[in-house]
Amino acid sequence: MEKLIKKVVDGSIEKCLPDNAVKQELKNLPSNKGRKILIAIGKAAYQMAKTALESDVKFDDAVVITKYDHLTSDLEGAVCFEAGHPISDDNTIIASKYAYDLVKDLTEDDLVVMLISGGGSALFEIPVVGFSEIQDINNQLLEKGANIIEINTIRKRLSKVKGGKFAEICKPATVYNIILSDVVGNRPDMIASGPTYVDKSTCKEAFDIVKKYDLSLSDEALKALEIETVKELNNSLINISGSVDQLCLEAKSILEKEGYDVDLLTTSLDNEAKEVGKVLSAIAREQSKRLDKKAYILGGETVVYLKGKGLGGRNQELAFASAKGIANLDNVVIMSYSSDGTDGPTDAAGAYVDGSTMEKLEKLGINFDEVLANNDSYTALKKIDQLIKTGPTGTNVNDCAIILIN
Amino acid sequence: MEKLIKKVVDGSIEKCLPDNAVKQELKNLPSNKGRKILIAIGKAAYQMAKTALESDVKFDDAVVITKYDHLTSDLEGAVCFEAGHPISDDNTIIASKYAYDLVKDLTEDDLVVMLISGGGSALFEIPVVGFSEIQDINNQLLEKGANIIEINTIRKRLSKVKGGKFAEICKPATVYNIILSDVVGNRPDMIASGPTYVDKSTCKEAFDIVKKYDLSLSDEALKALEIETVKELNNSLINISGSVDQLCLEAKSILEKEGYDVDLLTTSLDNEAKEVGKVLSAIAREQSKRLDKKAYILGGETVVYLKGKGLGGRNQELAFASAKGIANLDNVVIMSYSSDGTDGPTDAAGAYVDGSTMEKLEKLGINFDEVLANNDSYTALKKIDQLIKTGPTGTNVNDCAIILIN
Repeated sequence: MEKLIKKVVDGSIEKCLPDNAVKQELKNLPSNKGRKILIAIGKAAYQMAKTALESDVKFDDAVVITKYDHLTSDLEGAVCFEAGHPISDDNTIIASKYAYDLVKDLTEDDLVVMLISGGGSALFEIPVVGFSEIQDINNQLLEKGANIIEINTIRKRLSKVKGGKFAEICKPATVYNIILSDVVGNRPDMIASGPTYVDKSTCKEAFDIVKKYDLSLSDEALKALEIETVKELNNSLINISGSVDQLCLEAKSILEKEGYDVDLLTTSLDNEAKEVGKVLSAIAREQSKRLDKKAYILGGETVVYLKGKGLGGRNQELAFASAKGIANLDNVVIMSYSSDGTDGPTDAAGAYVDGSTMEKLEKLGINFDEVLANNDSYTALKKIDQLIKTGPTGTNVNDCAIILIN
Repeated sequence: MEKLIKKVVDGSIEKCLPDNAVKQELKNLPSNKGRKILIAIGKAAYQMAKTALESDVKFDDAVVITKYDHLTSDLEGAVCFEAGHPISDDNTIIASKYAYDLVKDLTEDDLVVMLISGGGSALFEIPVVGFSEIQDINNQLLEKGANIIEINTIRKRLSKVKGGKFAEICKPATVYNIILSDVVGNRPDMIASGPTYVDKSTCKEAFDIVKKYDLSLSDEALKALEIETVKELNNSLINISGSVDQLCLEAKSILEKEGYDVDLLTTSLDNEAKEVGKVLSAIAREQSKRLDKKAYILGGETVVYLKGKGLGGRNQELAFASAKGIANLDNVVIMSYSSDGTDGPTDAAGAYVDGSTMEKLEKLGINFDEVLANNDSYTALKKIDQLIKTGPTGTNVNDCAIILIN
């Protein structure tokens, strides 16, 4: 079973590696004859830019903006920056202004190739209010549990590049976007806060979020929230290549080759990790009675409301929470993993549980309810050797949870 | 669509009515030649007893113990009691002692027919500690959010009839049980706290629950928790007739006749209602893209952790919570209903939502998140006329949630 789990995890993640996305999409590059500018932003920016720079396309300028420790080496032909994530810092602005200057005076013949991946929202930013206030607002939103869509709705309005504004700056040049999606639903206005895509969020929504989380904002910021984002763009071409759909479909394909009948139930989970785990265990209990070689796949990005001080991540918590409901069933495995290989602040991509997991925990005196209350799934699952580890993968297209009935 | 919803709800509930269960199981009554005693306990006791008394079987004595306002009329040949539910009261003890006296001196030739339905745990009780303490412990457990299995584990030990003890009293007579299950998983040791079934729960589990919820107990009660429940019984025959499985299978059958391809995903949901609703909306979002005439059924009993002061029930909250995730989809309906027809303290059995629900709420200025935070789904769904009403049904075999892709 460990072998099969590894095969599914490794195979599905490989399909979503940025290299593959970039290679595929560069084949259809527009034929603009002028200057070609490469701008790569996000946690996968290094790997995406590397593939683009090693391709047949010749770029006149290139800039890479990624997270600290995400530059494996220098890239010939590119200026590379590392900056703060998930909280922007001074390097964010220095790097983003560098990109801004590269595109602000282009002509109609020119082409900007944007490589966008998760994390771009924090990594690519020129704020319209003081930077310390942006950081403060970010902190407020993260601490109060706002989701990525809510965070982006606010941040777009406090930014000179988000919400389609960067594509406006590139005008009249064409912008060709290759996007790895880390936002459930793959909305290009939400991925990296949509620097090159029209934005449908409204000022009213922004103010509703301010109210919902009781955000504290300066008058200057409140004024910025009143200005609408870009609602129309004719110079920006969007290509979404890697996404959670692809991750789930590849997992499905691998399991089908192993003889499983597979239902892909959803690619847009977005609720509480441990509750999703409990629903999966309820499904597994029923189906294990009468089926074999059956799999259910659910993709998306669950959330954890941190209450304890333990170590874990949303995938580990989902899998852990499902263990109780499948206790003593001998033909069920429930697994969940993150495509980026780092689930929460841990060195695991996720975890798997089966009918023997509860017994293993009990033997070690580990109390199931206490682990959940402390958000300490990593510690517990490590002790019984049920973590899934891949190391950082270089891609980030959310998560995949699987029920296997054997 | 309203017509189809009504057809599924009414049809599946009818299949689980106590009348049908009792008629079916009385056919296989043991042939004991001695006295026949009928004891009906639970919320469906009146209807079950009525069917038994109108059958060919002649009973020498009969007692009915049900909830206040659940006796539609007197029953010829039976002594009928109404008592407190979910909190036992003085009438509980009076009624239960009456039943106790009927069975305490039986012979081997005699037969006790027990008709057991949900609510029996509160309605059938002779406590071993002071009654006011039992009530206090019940209140503590309910207030602190203990689940029915935990509540029963404690209560069995504080009782002279639960946890198999009533069957012990009936000895050497045979006990023939006809059970409507309201406990997910249909464990006869849990339904009505298993008065006639061996109990596997352990003293250790009981003390773990005391610790988990920080219960305050007298020394007398703590001492009672140390005494093990009945572990072996050879005079008690168990027949589980109505159950959530039956409810879901009948809903499946009705939908299949309407041309739907139906997956029964589970019959043992037991986690948070609103989180289940969100998972269902995530599944519906995905499947609505590529399927039509498809249905998913999930049975069980979800829970609501009351935080607000609104009006609702677990089925209404589940359906309501799913509305956001299916907004604007024109081919999705999500419904959830309770087989007893009374979801929470409301006059609705449940509710349904579709792609237009969010818009309807917004038009009335109803804030989705606030409704969930206030547990006020009934009020909101009533305003947009999306409640499912059946009136009290006379049965109680838990709930059924359905996704319809049209």
